Amino acid sequence: MNPLIVEAALQQARRAYRADEVPVGAVVFDSRTGAIVARASNRVEAAQNPTAHAEMRAIQKACQKLRTKFLTGYSLFVTLEPCAMCAGAIAWARLDALHYGAFDPKTGAVRQGAKVFSRRQTHHKPRVRGGIAAAECGGLMTSFFKDKR
Amino acid sequence: MNPLIVEAALQQARRAYRADEVPVGAVVFDSRTGAIVARASNRVEAAQNPTAHAEMRAIQKACQKLRTKFLTGYSLFVTLEPCAMCAGAIAWARLDALHYGAFDPKTGAVRQGAKVFSRRQTHHKPRVRGGIAAAECGGLMTSFFKDKR
Repeated sequence: MNPLIVEAALQQARRAYRADEVPVGAVVFDSRTGAIVARASNRVEAAQNPTAHAEMRAIQKACQKLRTKFLTGYSLFVTLEPCAMCAGAIAWARLDALHYGAFDPKTGAVRQGAKVFSRRQTHHKPRVRGGIAAAECGGLMTSFFKDKR
Repeated sequence: MNPLIVEAALQQARRAYRADEVPVGAVVFDSRTGAIVARASNRVEAAQNPTAHAEMRAIQKACQKLRTKFLTGYSLFVTLEPCAMCAGAIAWARLDALHYGAFDPKTGAVRQGAKVFSRRQTHHKPRVRGGIAAAECGGLMTSFFKDKR
């Protein structure tokens, strides 16, 4: 995994943290060249929109920029294991691959729980790799929720 | 289930059909009074946005109108069993109840597949009832895809 892509997503997550949003960042990039086409942070609070997760926003931005509903040829990196909503969106967008940072036993739906990509009802299944830069990605979450207590 | 709410969602689904979109419609309404606060149709093709499902758009519209990220006190009716993405969004929005029309063995994630509301990782679980006006709701889908072949 290209460290520049991981760093770009972490930058988005830190930006969310500073804005008092759950610190998650996502990046959509060209699967072959690694060129970044969209980056986004979680904005649920600012937008008062429960669907404004980093992955959703990165997918929407990439589709808008590329004028397509299918992100074939592109991959997504997100700092946290996606929830059911975001995993579903990744499948609908037909992204080649999902790379993610920290595992999320609390709301994750890729490695655990709904296991969206293991279902017959999910017609597109990206390549999946989790646990990338997990300490740094997960550390932001731990620190954010510790501050909240 | 209030037939006016079902009819409002069916109207949205028919509107999608006429626009050559997969015919699904959704409505967010006050759980107590039945007053409709948002209605939306599937707009994936027109928006070239893979996340623009009827449920997502109805939730986003309702949150915008009510200036809130939580739709506690409100319920959603959608003509088709939600997919994983939409079921996840329904949970994040904390809707009181999900009522839906036709069961969807192909992409559904409520009664089948990911079974999003049966997971420990899904923290809010709405009351769920499916199969409402299923013949009419599902008939639109069958007819749409028959036209496509």
